[in-house]
Amino acid sequence: MPDFFPLPVFGGGAPLYDQLYRHIAGAIQSGALSPGAKLPSKRRMCALTGVSMSTVETAYSLLAAEGYVLSKPRSGYVCARLLLPAPAAPPPVPEPPPSPDPPRWAYDCSTSAVDTSAFPFSSWARITKEAVYENPGLLQRGHPQGDQPLRAALAQLLSQYRGVRCSPEQVVVGAGADYLLSLLLQLLPEQRAIALEDPGYPAAYAAAALHGREALPIPVDGEGMDPDALAASGADLAYVTPSHQFPLGVTMPAGRRSRLLHWAAAAPGRFLIEDDYDSEFRYASRPIPAMQGLDRAGRVVYMGTFSRSIAPAIRVAYMILPPPLLDRYRSTFSHGACTVSRFEQESLRRFLAQGLYGRHLRRTGNLYRRKCALFTGALAQIPGAAISGAQAGLHFLLTLPRYPEEELVARAAARSVRVHPLSRYCHAAPPLPSTVVLGFAGLGEEALQQAADLLREGWS
Amino acid sequence: MPDFFPLPVFGGGAPLYDQLYRHIAGAIQSGALSPGAKLPSKRRMCALTGVSMSTVETAYSLLAAEGYVLSKPRSGYVCARLLLPAPAAPPPVPEPPPSPDPPRWAYDCSTSAVDTSAFPFSSWARITKEAVYENPGLLQRGHPQGDQPLRAALAQLLSQYRGVRCSPEQVVVGAGADYLLSLLLQLLPEQRAIALEDPGYPAAYAAAALHGREALPIPVDGEGMDPDALAASGADLAYVTPSHQFPLGVTMPAGRRSRLLHWAAAAPGRFLIEDDYDSEFRYASRPIPAMQGLDRAGRVVYMGTFSRSIAPAIRVAYMILPPPLLDRYRSTFSHGACTVSRFEQESLRRFLAQGLYGRHLRRTGNLYRRKCALFTGALAQIPGAAISGAQAGLHFLLTLPRYPEEELVARAAARSVRVHPLSRYCHAAPPLPSTVVLGFAGLGEEALQQAADLLREGWS
Repeated sequence: MPDFFPLPVFGGGAPLYDQLYRHIAGAIQSGALSPGAKLPSKRRMCALTGVSMSTVETAYSLLAAEGYVLSKPRSGYVCARLLLPAPAAPPPVPEPPPSPDPPRWAYDCSTSAVDTSAFPFSSWARITKEAVYENPGLLQRGHPQGDQPLRAALAQLLSQYRGVRCSPEQVVVGAGADYLLSLLLQLLPEQRAIALEDPGYPAAYAAAALHGREALPIPVDGEGMDPDALAASGADLAYVTPSHQFPLGVTMPAGRRSRLLHWAAAAPGRFLIEDDYDSEFRYASRPIPAMQGLDRAGRVVYMGTFSRSIAPAIRVAYMILPPPLLDRYRSTFSHGACTVSRFEQESLRRFLAQGLYGRHLRRTGNLYRRKCALFTGALAQIPGAAISGAQAGLHFLLTLPRYPEEELVARAAARSVRVHPLSRYCHAAPPLPSTVVLGFAGLGEEALQQAADLLREGWS
Repeated sequence: MPDFFPLPVFGGGAPLYDQLYRHIAGAIQSGALSPGAKLPSKRRMCALTGVSMSTVETAYSLLAAEGYVLSKPRSGYVCARLLLPAPAAPPPVPEPPPSPDPPRWAYDCSTSAVDTSAFPFSSWARITKEAVYENPGLLQRGHPQGDQPLRAALAQLLSQYRGVRCSPEQVVVGAGADYLLSLLLQLLPEQRAIALEDPGYPAAYAAAALHGREALPIPVDGEGMDPDALAASGADLAYVTPSHQFPLGVTMPAGRRSRLLHWAAAAPGRFLIEDDYDSEFRYASRPIPAMQGLDRAGRVVYMGTFSRSIAPAIRVAYMILPPPLLDRYRSTFSHGACTVSRFEQESLRRFLAQGLYGRHLRRTGNLYRRKCALFTGALAQIPGAAISGAQAGLHFLLTLPRYPEEELVARAAARSVRVHPLSRYCHAAPPLPSTVVLGFAGLGEEALQQAADLLREGWS
């Protein structure tokens, strides 16, 4: 080591061998030590720096392991040629700005929140602990579709509550509905276009774009997706929300379901994706059985999630693949692991098996029914306001012809109430002018009353 | 209802209203009840069937809600026209066969298992319970990149142990490395081709295929991916495992890293994916700092996972995006939710913050070091056998020129020992003939001794 080479200044924090290693590696990278230059012997380095022999040995062996120096039999350690100097002088990458804080609203009536006040914390904590303690085998890699006991419980639940006909073999568990939709599009590479409801779920449009598919917006009328427009679109894949159309809230009647099933069965390679996203909450009648249960041709992929019925934090969704797609799934994804932690799968299975899920649904269903009645009741007092889509789910529409849509949103925002315009979900002109979408799940009853008072004032 | 229409036969199980509803809906679907036919009045249906008025009312309102019947002011309930009969007679979808049971091996030396005997069950169970109990706010939707406290803990961990330079803003948490790789490919739609190590990680090839990218196999030599072949390939995206090449086990020295970083910085839109998949376990020296820490141009995406360092059941992986990709990520994926349960994120954060992860790594590191020494020591006694790549990670290579590769595998299989041929990971001819890949993590020390005895016998 040439005498002009500055010796390291040791500081606190990192171990001494690490500081010595970094110092020498930095000098080689910067060119301060040239290729072929000899490092001082270990003994001399100890004397120069005052550190112990084992510290020097560790640093040198690290430099050798990483290729900074070569150990030559007689001549000791020699600086290696790094072939190219470190890339010269692109400006250092700037620190990224923190993600902007979302604006704060006094009353957030967007559609993604749920009421977590009824969440059974103590049961879930107990179950989670049991799931870890009692199942050491769960630490190893599980079935790519999700563990069999959970899939069996889901098949039974969906058969009982949703009229879905499937075996546990057809169930695929994954970390959220968006993830499963993405997986499904990867399974269907020939379907270059996908028919989507207009207005419709933005994440479905986003998934189509991410996977390079053409999104074909199909108008929704009072019965759901228009089957004539679907047939005319040329798509072989359609995504629908028949139980509770998002965001219009209409329920697809049997005749329309039958027409869509006919469309799917009429040509090879056609599939319907039935997203049953909040079928758990209906206030006017029992949940309507899923379209999947009427499918005799194996053309419906059924999807559901626990994000709304339990909590957004629980990232467990599921899809039911018809047998032809199941074969394809198995040959394509057999190498992968399920994206849901096996502990969380087992916790959820226990939650279902111990009857806690049913109890939770009854409790939250009553809560939402009360909130929906309270909020719609208070808003219905606004002269000229019409409410629709409130028979199910966690949101409804309000139409008030007195103001254009953007003014409804602005007047709400001026009172710190967040509402979304219907056009946010539309690709053609909104089917209802002067209409906003109101979610009520995330606010307490008192807050809903206050929000309704503010909206009445703003929209008068 | 015409008199010839058969009345329902009520059975046990489903509620009576449900049986009545299904009976009538089925008759309408099958055509036994024609469009326009009138249902008996509610009172008459009570008399005909002997069920209560509320049962009939529930069934009728359900039929009306689903569009099977229309309620007409004066004439009562009339069967709707379903427009098309139910799709005719495609054969019923057969029950899918159960996924075939994997063959049973007495000794499985594949590379994906880990040793879970040292998993701190009681600590993890306690932490998991605390994470649920003490954080009711976690039930709501979290940050799409993962919660900030976990991202901060990861940034600190990676800076300390891996020399990664990042802010918590650059961290993206997701349900497994395969998922994050898929996300990353969706972020890089212009990169039509991806350079992959040959031999290399099969899941990276699978991800390329699933996203419609051309996979360009680039030879790996004793220092990792060949930079000249990479430059000649025309790819703008390369996936590498510099800390411990999979499966050859070589460590990329500083000069080679520098050349790859130069390649990436030399043209706009070039990126390197650094998969640091099992950097936690090194037996010959300290872990070598990540390439990401040397990147001054913002061209390295760093990836890591807890699947191997904690357990495959824990589906938490992370990637560090350079600022240009972070901007793109935020505009593309801002609508999505993180795929990892927030409870599990919080459990992991506590595991890191309470020093339990460090303790777990030290314990398992010693365990693996012992197993590796035991297994390689026993196998090295086979005359002619050469072992390589055993200085780190959970697998190594064994070359035995006496037999061709497929015979090595077959002779092991005949003794119920599962080993993988190197060619399984190769796209060109294997760089080492007569070579198998041996994982040791999933077997106990006694089992490793027994497996080594069997292999010695089979390969003599």
